[in-house]
Parts: sequence; structure tokens; C-alpha cells
Amino acid sequence: MTYTCLISSFPGDIKQTIEFARINKFSAISVNSINYGFRDRELLKLPLKNDHVPFSRSDLILEANDWSRRVIMMLSDPYGIDFKDGKVRQAKEALLCQELDHANFLQGSGYVMIRLNYGNKLANLARILAAKVKCLALINLKLSNEEDTWSWWNQLRTCANFSGKFKVVLEITSGAVNEEALKKWLGEPIEGLEIPTSLFIRNKNNYPVLPKNIQQVLGRFLEKRNINFFVSAPFDENLHFYSEYLESVKVKLSKYQDNVFKSVADALQIPLQPLYDNLDTYTYDVFEKDPIKYMKYQEAITAALKDMEGDSEKIIMVLGAGRGPLVRAVLNGACKSQKTVKILVIEKNACAINTLYGHMSETWLSETDKNPVIEVINKDMRDYNPPVKADMIVSELLGSFGDNELSPECLDCATRLLKDTGISIPYRSTSYVNPMMSTKLLEAVRNLPARGNQPEPFSYTKKAQTMYVVFLNNVYHIDSPKALFKFEHPNRENPVNNNRFGEVSFKAKTDCVLTGFAGYFDADLYKDIKISTHPLEHTAGMSSWFPVFIPLIQPQFVKEGEDISGSFWRNVGSHAVWYEWMTTSPQHSLMHNTEGHCSKIYSV
Amino acid sequence: MTYTCLISSFPGDIKQTIEFARINKFSAISVNSINYGFRDRELLKLPLKNDHVPFSRSDLILEANDWSRRVIMMLSDPYGIDFKDGKVRQAKEALLCQELDHANFLQGSGYVMIRLNYGNKLANLARILAAKVKCLALINLKLSNEEDTWSWWNQLRTCANFSGKFKVVLEITSGAVNEEALKKWLGEPIEGLEIPTSLFIRNKNNYPVLPKNIQQVLGRFLEKRNINFFVSAPFDENLHFYSEYLESVKVKLSKYQDNVFKSVADALQIPLQPLYDNLDTYTYDVFEKDPIKYMKYQEAITAALKDMEGDSEKIIMVLGAGRGPLVRAVLNGACKSQKTVKILVIEKNACAINTLYGHMSETWLSETDKNPVIEVINKDMRDYNPPVKADMIVSELLGSFGDNELSPECLDCATRLLKDTGISIPYRSTSYVNPMMSTKLLEAVRNLPARGNQPEPFSYTKKAQTMYVVFLNNVYHIDSPKALFKFEHPNRENPVNNNRFGEVSFKAKTDCVLTGFAGYFDADLYKDIKISTHPLEHTAGMSSWFPVFIPLIQPQFVKEGEDISGSFWRNVGSHAVWYEWMTTSPQHSLMHNTEGHCSKIYSV
Repeated sequence: MTYTCLISSFPGDIKQTIEFARINKFSAISVNSINYGFRDRELLKLPLKNDHVPFSRSDLILEANDWSRRVIMMLSDPYGIDFKDGKVRQAKEALLCQELDHANFLQGSGYVMIRLNYGNKLANLARILAAKVKCLALINLKLSNEEDTWSWWNQLRTCANFSGKFKVVLEITSGAVNEEALKKWLGEPIEGLEIPTSLFIRNKNNYPVLPKNIQQVLGRFLEKRNINFFVSAPFDENLHFYSEYLESVKVKLSKYQDNVFKSVADALQIPLQPLYDNLDTYTYDVFEKDPIKYMKYQEAITAALKDMEGDSEKIIMVLGAGRGPLVRAVLNGACKSQKTVKILVIEKNACAINTLYGHMSETWLSETDKNPVIEVINKDMRDYNPPVKADMIVSELLGSFGDNELSPECLDCATRLLKDTGISIPYRSTSYVNPMMSTKLLEAVRNLPARGNQPEPFSYTKKAQTMYVVFLNNVYHIDSPKALFKFEHPNRENPVNNNRFGEVSFKAKTDCVLTGFAGYFDADLYKDIKISTHPLEHTAGMSSWFPVFIPLIQPQFVKEGEDISGSFWRNVGSHAVWYEWMTTSPQHSLMHNTEGHCSKIYSV
Repeated sequence: MTYTCLISSFPGDIKQTIEFARINKFSAISVNSINYGFRDRELLKLPLKNDHVPFSRSDLILEANDWSRRVIMMLSDPYGIDFKDGKVRQAKEALLCQELDHANFLQGSGYVMIRLNYGNKLANLARILAAKVKCLALINLKLSNEEDTWSWWNQLRTCANFSGKFKVVLEITSGAVNEEALKKWLGEPIEGLEIPTSLFIRNKNNYPVLPKNIQQVLGRFLEKRNINFFVSAPFDENLHFYSEYLESVKVKLSKYQDNVFKSVADALQIPLQPLYDNLDTYTYDVFEKDPIKYMKYQEAITAALKDMEGDSEKIIMVLGAGRGPLVRAVLNGACKSQKTVKILVIEKNACAINTLYGHMSETWLSETDKNPVIEVINKDMRDYNPPVKADMIVSELLGSFGDNELSPECLDCATRLLKDTGISIPYRSTSYVNPMMSTKLLEAVRNLPARGNQPEPFSYTKKAQTMYVVFLNNVYHIDSPKALFKFEHPNRENPVNNNRFGEVSFKAKTDCVLTGFAGYFDADLYKDIKISTHPLEHTAGMSSWFPVFIPLIQPQFVKEGEDISGSFWRNVGSHAVWYEWMTTSPQHSLMHNTEGHCSKIYSV
């Protein structure tokens, strides 16, 4: 549910203003919290004057809930609160504290808003807001090329330790907007956009509309998330024309509403460990709902079979078959390539075996005229000793970061199942990383609850040294991804070494804050047939994998043009595999997940 | 949303059974997870036989979600799993593990159920259930005077460290039920009641109905919470008569649905600290919605004014007036007693002062013909130096545990505001405690999330040494409350000492588990006019206070007839007050909240 808020600078009865706003189709108003014209108000702790009058309205003029649902308290201009001059600073501080006490009294779970028109010194303002604000605080800033308002915001929220209490209301201006600045704002917690009515032009029917360039800016935000509109206007206009127009823009441009993944946007998921934990039927069900992935596999299997010489029966092993989608792909590939195949279906999960038997007796045999031989084997592929060796092994052991579900360890064990001329589909996997900024994900790591029946919750320090699977949305990607780890299959090296180390460097196009890295992968299936989650080469329509998020405990400020260097390790122990990571630029971070103390992927 | 489940022991197609149940108005079925008659099933890790057949159905016969929504997997009888004989034990263990793997594969967030027909040794069963079950596990037990099935349940969940994964399905039997046993079950996490159709009798129209005594037992559960029904029946009956009858019983007896507090039942609330934090308008709003409390105050004020001699103006101070409800009570009291009063309204919260001014100019003066003098003073009562002394001070500074919002500290400072003959309303407050058992609250303390912007979540150890305000519901009160701390006002002792120590002893009427104490209070307003949250003397209709819950870190098993002794301290420091507590019987606990390290009530 989004709202449209009228920023009302005109004096008047608050009840009448809410009613006026409602008639004009605004669901909320933003007003000054202090009586209009009441400048010399008395402050807390001073002895009251004889002619004391209250500094604000009585709360009883509204139903308690209407204060938080209908009213956003606008705080006074804080300019002066960071002056060296103690007298000015203290007076301003006292005024702000009084207003915040008042807002806390009235707002409950609601909002206060503060307009920021300067950014040279903000530490004292940030300190007071972070300490005093109990509800949500909206920081109102201009989106403009004239002033670097992002750095004002960044100072504030950095002082406030990236608290989730702070969100941005961005005022749209008529000037051009720098593309990188816009992208950066899209990665910030934006509550809404302020549209002054002065930005509107008249269309041929004399109705107010926004110019095309401004519509485009609005579209960029609406594409990515729910946006609330704030309209600032003088009193005497027909304000409902503006709210109706903005509502129509929202309906027209809000692609986010159609995004099937919006319910899990920026939500942290613990990566699966299918080698250690058996998957359940729900997980298989989700996997199998991605036709694109299996089409690609089928394409690869067909091409590979076509390239195989002779008419002899080809032995194909499906390794980690789950509930059998790759068996279907092999059957179709055999049919298309007109080859005779024998399929050995290897799966360690005894429960999935029931499903495979069901398929064997019901679906697989009846649909093909060749009636291939299919055998279901309930074994871990690492323990399997087949009667014959395979011409082809097919597997889908890849995680969101490629090798993070231990496909290298599994496929290395399977090399001995292959003939010398045998091939593996996929034959290579590569992981990629890029640096990113996201307050939302930093907050998500902090707020991640304890899991299951754990007696104690995890500390932030531990949670921030763990990799997560995330549908990345409220994120600014600082630079494009670069390749990190590569694995080839079959790997006939002896001994095989699946430890890896990679160092990757990036450049910041603009001032920003590094909060972690995003990770992706691609897998080469056969020749140039591949699947990829790399954002610039993503396999169209494939939905099986979200990226991984690799957090940093401590955010790092990065200047435009500065290098970002990350070092990543993949370490193989006797019972587990784990990643470690750190940055060496712009700052040396501590080593994350040393010895896998915070997260491991178990192999036995 | 509750459900009605058909426990189906008859073989058949699961899809048909779900459909049969649906037609008969059951929303779920409970079935064996293993193929009917399939006794010699192969177990995981063994080499497969040549004539291997799957041990259960394929998951594909149902939509994935229907497994968790429509099916409760019934596990095999675990008897033997705790045998000393290694062969029997290991075989039983392997069977159970296979079934649990299978349930985890299919059930997602759903349920498994296990019937327990014995209770002499349960440790190995508990260990396996606690380790393996990922979904919710329903323990199916008989409610009967013949067997102490509660102790079976208690062994299981104690081994499993009171995990929230375990809930009880209680089979109703025809025999009489011991009242204390019933009360105890009402304090346990009951998922539902099983009703065998054999319990039904025929009414004069030949429809199946339950005998009165069984209806009464059902009513006891329905009074307290949402209850799901499980019906066990042979195949060939008209089962919809039973489900329809139970639905009508639910509608008729489910008082819980009408409970206005059910949304906060057993939810932990952090106690307010109105002396340290200023309250907000929402909190005042809730307070003022309890007319009973203010009626009692008005009654007390009226009686006290009537008892005062002479027609001179009486000075009445309302201390901590908030938004003014007690001022209204004083005005009404003056009117009823025909006394002339001057009211001094003292409130430290500058935001509430706005409200009081609003009342002064709008509501207070116009409604009385006497036009009493009212003065609003924005001061902490501890800093107030009045021009005259009072005949009466009126305050409502009481918390759920009486003195826990520091009313003694505040009122002691106010003694100097009183004439020598002056009185305080209230003139005494007393706190009470009783021992209780509640798995639900133990679980709630564990799961309490981090608050606000704290960088790290609290540990269980810290959270379990904090007092909470709770609407107690899923709780067994082991014994009746006893008085703990008493405070009298005005207290003219010199020096005043508000430290307290109390030791209280109780007796267990039946075997149970002590998980903490419940706390209440009463306050004597004037003569015999009082308000009370003591459960046996609760002021009818008064809703302002829920009890407090005083947790113990470690639950203690208590035998029938055994003593429970608790020691409680109230300690006053220079900046704060805190409670410490421990038990000395049945076991010595550690000292909780030593030096206030885990929770304090700040006084400055």
C-alpha cells in the first residue's frame, strides 16, 4: 500500500487540512509540528512564564491513530545546530529536541520529516536524530546536479550507523540528472518522491501533466519499488488534478507490481546444502518450474549426442537426478538425435527415489518409441561403482555462486565413472563478483532472526560473515562483475586441487559506500551452449538462481575513481568447504569467515 | 483458522481419501507414511535388493502444497526404540529415521504425528525426534485417569529442551478426568483433541452427539484457545455427521474467539518506564479507555472528600496527571461531595501539558457549576515546591507488579507536599506472586527478537532475567498467589527504605514443571475501596493491567506435594531500581538479574 502526501505549509486547522487533503485525494498531510507564528516558544526544563501558552496543538483534536496514519510531522529547519557558536547551537538543539519529543508523543509508529538544505556539517544533527527519533525519520533532499545531496544523506546515515530508521524523500527538480547519481539513489532506502506543483506543465486540454524527462525519472523509481508521492503546493490550487495525475503515472509505470519475485526482494536466504541435507519435494518442485534451464540442458545433450560417432548404445549417467527432470531432458535428446541410450539414474536421496520409480512405471517408458533402458540407483555418486563406464555424465549441482553446492567435489569423484572419451555436461563453471552498496541488506543481516531451535541468536559479527542467496533489488552495483573461480569437468589432474584464490579489482564511478559483494555464475554445458546468471549475460527467462550476497562487517566509504580490491578464497577441508574474503582497497577489512568459523558447506 | 482432521487407518489411494474426507467436511487427513502391508521394507544405506519396491508413494500423486496442507503423516509405533537389545533398538531406529526423512521430504512446514502408548523409557525416541523432525511433531496421547500420560509428554519435551516443534494431540476418553490434570493440560501446547467416533451416542433423532461430560471437557479447551479436532473412525460410517457436530460444538463453546485480548495472548511486552521515558499519546489513549479504574478512583476521592471536615477549600494535587483522567475524577468527586476544591495538576511530560491546557480551556471549566481553580504545572513531582500544602494527593503510578514503575520513590518525594493531616490515594500497594508452568512463554522468551537499533541481539540468558508484561493464557498456575511487597503512603519514616526482601512458599498439587512466576498487585485507594489484578479478587471489568511474568532460566521438575520456594528482592540504587530473584526449592536456581545486570528501572 502506498500513500500520497500533501506537504502543507499553509496555516490552518489540522482537521480541516486533513479533510481538504482527503477531498483532493491525498491520504496524508505533512505539517509543521509547532503552532504557526509561535517563534518564542518556551523550552523544556525552563521555568514556565506567567503568560505561557502551549507550543503546539492538543493531541485530542485527532483520534490517536490518525496522528500516525494521516500526519507526517515536519520538523523546523535545523540550520545552526552544528554551529561552533554554543549559544546558537544549544538553542537550535533545544528546539529540535522539543519537536522530536512532541513527535514521539504523537507519532507512534508514524513518521517525522526534516528538510535538509545544507550539507557541510551534520554530525550534531545526526547524533540528535539517531538518539531521539523513535518513529521513522524521512530526510527530505533535492535530486539535482547542482548539489551533491547524496553526500549529505551519506554523512547523516553513517553517523547514525546505517540505522533502518532513516529513509529518503527525494525532491524532483527540473534540471538534468546524472545517470550514475540516479542509479546510486535507486540503491538507497527511498520512501518517496516529492513533486512540487511548479514542475507541472499544461497539456492541450489545460490539465497539469509532468514533462517527459521528469516522467522518465519517476519511471526509473517505480520500476524498482513501491514509491509514495509527496506533493508540495501553494494553497489555492485544484490539488486533486495533481494527485489524480500522479496516481495514473503510478499505475502506468509501476512495473514493480508485476514482479513475481517482489515478495522476496532483498530477503536473505540461507544457501541450500543439497549434498549434506536431502532436499524436500517443495524445493524440487521449484527447481522443476524453470523450463528454460532444462531446455538448455536438452539442447546441450542433443548436440553432444549428435556429435558422438557410431550407432552403438550410449551410456548416459544422470548424477544427482533428484525427481528426474534431467532424465526427461536425456530422453528427449536421445529422441531428437536418433541415438540409442542407456540411462543410469543416480540419486542419493531415498525419498526422491520413490518419485523416480513412479516416473519409471508411469511416464518415462510410454512416451518414447525407443524404450530406452533406464536404471535407478539409490547411491551417492561418490560411492557408486558402475558395471560399465559412461559416454556422458549430466548433472545440475550448481549453486548461486557456481561451485558453492560442491559440484567440483562431486564431479571429481565421478571422473572415474567416465570413459576416457567421455564428456561432462556441464564441462565448466565460473563464478563472478562485483562490489555493491545496500543499506537494506546491511539492515537485513542485522535483523536476521535466530534459526530453528537454536538456544542463542547469532551475533551480527557472525551473521555478517556468511553468504546469502538474495533477489537483489534495493542495491547499487558499484562496478560490473569480474570472473573469480573456474572449474573444468572432467578434471583428470592428479591430485585434484579445488582450493582457489582470486583477487579482483574494480573502480568506483562515483562516491559511494561498499557494503559487500554480489556473486553470480555461468556454466558451459556443451560447446557454446551455456546457462548464466551474470547480470550482463543472463540466460533469458531462467529463474532458478538468485545471486549471492557476500557481506562486509563494516561498510567502507569509497571516493569516485578509487579502486576496490577484494580477495576471495575457496578452502577445502576434510569435511567441509568454505569461503574466506577480505578487501585490501579502499581499506583493509578483517578476514571474513576465517577457517569457516561462521559458515561452512559440509561435504560429509 | 482451525482444521478438522480425519485419522484414516484404512488403506487406499491417498487422493481418494483426501476427496472422501473433503466430502465429509474434513480439511485434512492423517495417514501412515508407509505403504500398507509393506513390512519388510529396505532401509537407507543398505544395498538395494533385486526385487526392491519403493517403501512409500511417489510424491507426485499430490500437488506439493497439498502434502503440507492436507496430510498429517502418521509415524509407526515407536515401541522398541528404547530397548536395551541393540538389534531391536537399531532396527526400530532405522525405521523411524526413514519415516522422518520421508516426512521431511514431503511435509515442508506441515506436521507429523506419533501415537505414544507407553511411557517408561523415552530418551532415545526423544533424541531422534528432536534431531530429525524439521516440521511440527504432534505427540498423540490419551487424556485419562488410568495412565499418567502427562509424564510421558513431559519426559519427551524435557529431553528435547522444551522445543517449540512439539505439540500435543490429546485423545478424549470416556472415563472421568481429574480436575488438576485437566488444568495442567490446559497449560501445555495443545494442537488439538482426538475424538474417536466410539465416544458418540445417539440423540432422539438418531444423530451422533457427544455425552454432556465430554462436551464439558471440550468446552474447557475451547474456552482457552483455538482447538483442532482429530476424528478417528472406522471406514464405513457417515463421517460428515461427526465433523458437522464438532463444528457446531466449536461454534457454541469457543469463548476464546470473543476474547478481545486473544491477539496478544502470551505475547511478551517490555514493561513501561514512565518515569524515565515520557509516555506517548497512544499509551495514554489505552489507559483512558478503562472506565472501571477511574470509577474506582472517583468513588475513593468522593468518599475521602465527604470525610473531610469543614467547608474550607481543599487542596488536591494530581501527581503525574498524564492527559488528565484523574482531574476529571477529582472534579466529579468535588461535585458529588459538594466540597470546594483547588486542583494542582502536576505532570512532567511537556507534551501531555499541551493536552492539559486543551482540557482547561475547553472541557473542565464548562462542565461544573462550582468553577474550581485548576492550575497546570509542568514539573516532575520530585522537584515541585508548591505555595501551599495539599489535603490530598491522587496518583496512578502503578505498574503491573505494583511498585515496578517506581510509585514508592515518587510518592515518598511527594510526602513533603502533604499537610500533616493529608492523605494519599492510593494509600497502600501490595504485589503478589504465584508459581507457574508454561512452555509457550519459555519459547516466547527464546524467540524474542532484538529491539530497535541494537547492534546485537540479546542472549537467552539475558532475556530470561527480565520481567515481562503478559496476558497469560497458555499457562498452568501451580498454586494461588501470595503477597510479596507492601508500600504505604504517605510514608513518614525517616529515612525511608524502599528495599524489600520476600520469601514465599507454595505447594504443587500435581507433578509439573516450574518455568517462572506470575506477578500481580492490588492498591488500596481509600478505606476499603481498592483496585486489584490478583486473579482471585480481580476488579471486575478493569482492563488496564496484564500480569507480569518473571522467568526462570532453567525449568525445574516439581513432584506432587513438593514445596516451591521463591526469594525476591527489590533493590534501590542511586539511579535505578531492580528486582532479583531465585528459587531455593525444589531446586536452588542461580540468582536472576544480580545487580540489575539484565534489567533495571531507571529513576533518573
